Amino acid sequence: MSATLPPLSAAGRIARLREALAGHGIERAVVSGASSRRWLSGFSGSNGDLVVTGDRVVLVTDGRYVAQAERQIAASGAGVDEVEMATTVVEQRRRVDSLCSGPGRVGFESTVWTHAEWSAHGSLDELVPIDSVLTGLRRRKDAAEVARMTEAARLASLALASARIEAGVTEREIRDELESTMRAHGADGPSYETIVASGPENAAMAHHRPTSRALVEGDTVVIDVGALLDGYHSDMTRTFIVGEPSPEQERWYRVLARAQQAGLEAVRAGVGTRDVDAACRAVLAEEGLADLFSHGTGHGVGLDIHEEPFLGRSTESVLATGDVVTVEPGLYRVGAGGMRIEDLVLVTESGHRSLTDFPKDDPCPPSPPTT
Amino acid sequence: MSATLPPLSAAGRIARLREALAGHGIERAVVSGASSRRWLSGFSGSNGDLVVTGDRVVLVTDGRYVAQAERQIAASGAGVDEVEMATTVVEQRRRVDSLCSGPGRVGFESTVWTHAEWSAHGSLDELVPIDSVLTGLRRRKDAAEVARMTEAARLASLALASARIEAGVTEREIRDELESTMRAHGADGPSYETIVASGPENAAMAHHRPTSRALVEGDTVVIDVGALLDGYHSDMTRTFIVGEPSPEQERWYRVLARAQQAGLEAVRAGVGTRDVDAACRAVLAEEGLADLFSHGTGHGVGLDIHEEPFLGRSTESVLATGDVVTVEPGLYRVGAGGMRIEDLVLVTESGHRSLTDFPKDDPCPPSPPTT
Repeated sequence: MSATLPPLSAAGRIARLREALAGHGIERAVVSGASSRRWLSGFSGSNGDLVVTGDRVVLVTDGRYVAQAERQIAASGAGVDEVEMATTVVEQRRRVDSLCSGPGRVGFESTVWTHAEWSAHGSLDELVPIDSVLTGLRRRKDAAEVARMTEAARLASLALASARIEAGVTEREIRDELESTMRAHGADGPSYETIVASGPENAAMAHHRPTSRALVEGDTVVIDVGALLDGYHSDMTRTFIVGEPSPEQERWYRVLARAQQAGLEAVRAGVGTRDVDAACRAVLAEEGLADLFSHGTGHGVGLDIHEEPFLGRSTESVLATGDVVTVEPGLYRVGAGGMRIEDLVLVTESGHRSLTDFPKDDPCPPSPPTT
Repeated sequence: MSATLPPLSAAGRIARLREALAGHGIERAVVSGASSRRWLSGFSGSNGDLVVTGDRVVLVTDGRYVAQAERQIAASGAGVDEVEMATTVVEQRRRVDSLCSGPGRVGFESTVWTHAEWSAHGSLDELVPIDSVLTGLRRRKDAAEVARMTEAARLASLALASARIEAGVTEREIRDELESTMRAHGADGPSYETIVASGPENAAMAHHRPTSRALVEGDTVVIDVGALLDGYHSDMTRTFIVGEPSPEQERWYRVLARAQQAGLEAVRAGVGTRDVDAACRAVLAEEGLADLFSHGTGHGVGLDIHEEPFLGRSTESVLATGDVVTVEPGLYRVGAGGMRIEDLVLVTESGHRSLTDFPKDDPCPPSPPTT
C-alpha cells in the first residue's frame, strides 16, 4: 500500500528550524527527541542527537544505527552533512558537546532530556529550551504526511469493519483481531495500546486496558483504535451497544454524537482550541451531561500520538491550516458504562477534512462478512 | 495461569526505601518512574507521584486512576496511607511540593524527571537523585516476582515451539504468530518489540525490526522474544538456520553456544558483571570471532526489560543473589547474517537457575505440530 503514497521528504525543514531559532537568538541546537529528530532528518532509530549549528548538521548515533542513519538521511533530502558514530553514551555526549562548544545559546529539548542528561551536558552553560519551537514546526502537516495518516486511518476502519463485536467475545479477543487485521493489511503496528472497554465498569474508564471480560447484552463497548504507518499515527474511537440499546443509552449516544458534531463544525483555521472544546461541552451541558465528560476534547496527532495542539477547557493555542487533530468527547459513569466518539481531522482554511470515515450514525456493531 | 502464581506483595518495601534513604541523609522522596512506583506501591497506572516522608506515604495521581490506585494499593500491602487526586499537571506538582515542603534533602529520580519537570519543582531546593537507591532495591527479586518471570518465559518458549520458521514465511508473519500465541495463552502482551531478523543483512542488525522479507534457504534467523505478565518481563533469543547449515554457520553456532555457556557458568553471587562478559568474550577471542560481538553480554530484567545490573566490558557492579539477568552473546557480520543465543537466569549463591528452557543444542528450527 505504501508504494503508492507520495514519498516523505524532510527537505527545507532544517532551514525552517534555523530561521525559527534565530528569532530567539539561538544559533546552535541539539535535537534528541525521536519524533522531532525523525521529522528533521528522516532518521527513525531509537538513539541519536541531531546537532544543528550555523554551518553544519551532524547526526551522532551509535553503532547499531550508523548504516540505517546514512540511508535514511540520504533518502529524506534533509541536508544532514554527516553521521558520527559514538561507541558509548559518554562518548556520544562528548561529541555533542564538542560540536556545540563556543559562546552563545544552545537549544535543547527540556521535555526530552532527563535531569541527569541535562546535568551531564553541563559544559554547555547557556542551554535554552526549544521544545515549543520544534512542536510548533511539526504542527503543519504536508501532503505526504497527511497521506500516511489517511492510509493509517483507513487500515483501522477496515479492521473495525471486520471485527466481531457481539456477546461472548472478550475485550482481548477484539483487540487481538483488530491489531492483527491492521498488520495483515500493511500497518507497522497499532498506533497506541488499542482500547476495548465494555460494560458498566470497564467502559466507564477512559483509558481502560482490554481484559478477558466477555461482552454481554446491554453493554456499551468503547473501541479506540489506530494504525501506525511510516511513523505516522491514526486515532479513532467508536462506541457500540450489544443488543437493544436502553432508552438511556439511546439518549446518551444521540447527545454525544451531537456534541462531537458541534466540535467538528467548530474546527477551522483561526479558531481557538478551547472554542472547539467549548462547542462540545455546550451541547452536553444543555442536556445535563457535562459532568460526565471528564477529559479534554482532543489533541494533535502526527509522529507522536499526542502532540501540539491540545484542545481543552483552558488551552491557549489557535488552530492553523495543516494541523491534524482529534475531536473526541466522551461520557462516563461507573455502573452505567461509557461512550466516546472520536474522529481525526485535517484543519483547513474553511473547516476540516476528516481522515476517519467509519460510520457513526448509530451504535450498532459492524456486521463483518461471515466466512 | 496467573491464578496459580503466588500473590505479589509490596509489603516492607517502603520501610527498606526509608532505611536506604536515611543512609544518604534523605528523609523525603518522590518516586515518579512507573516501575519503581509500581514496585513500591503496587500501583500500575501511567501517571502518579509516590511521596514518601518520615511519617506518611501518599500517592498523587489523576482522575483516571484514583479508583484503580486505591484497589491496587490495598491489595499490595504496601502501606500507602492515602491517594490524592489532582485534576491538572500543575495541581499534581503543587501537591507533591506541598507534601515535600520543609527543610532538608528531597530524593527524586534524575533519570525519570525531564529537565522541564525538575525546573517546575524548583521550590524544592535540595533535590537529590535517588535513582541508584531504587534500582538497587529492585534488583533482588522475591519468589512471586521470579514466578511471574518464569511463567512469562514459559509462554515465550511455548510460542516459539509452535512457530513456523521455514522458507517462504515472512519475518512479520513469524512475529505476529509469536505474539498472538503468547497472548492466547495468557500473556499481557510481548515483553518488548519482538525481533525476527533473517538473512545476510537483517540478521546482522542486533536490533532489527521485522519486515516483509520472506525466509529463504541458507538464512540465519535471530528470534528475540519475551512475554509480559503482571508487569514482569521475560527475554530469550534463539537462532535458527533455514535448511542445511553451511560449514561456516555450523562453526559460528558452535562457538557462540560455547561462549554463551561459558557466560552462564560464570554467573554466581559475588562475581563481577564484567567477568561474565569477559568469559563470553574469551571463547570468541580464541576462535578469532571477538570482533563480531558488538554489544554487551547482558542486563537485568524485572519490571523493566533493561534494568540494573548491566553486564558489559566495563560495568562495575557485582552479581547478587536474587538478580535476574540475561546472558546473550551474539555474532554479526553484514553479508553473512547474525546469531545470538540468550537465556534469562536467576542468580543464586552457587550459580544460577535458568528461567528460559527452549532447546539450543543446534540451530534447527522447531517442528510445530502440523494441523
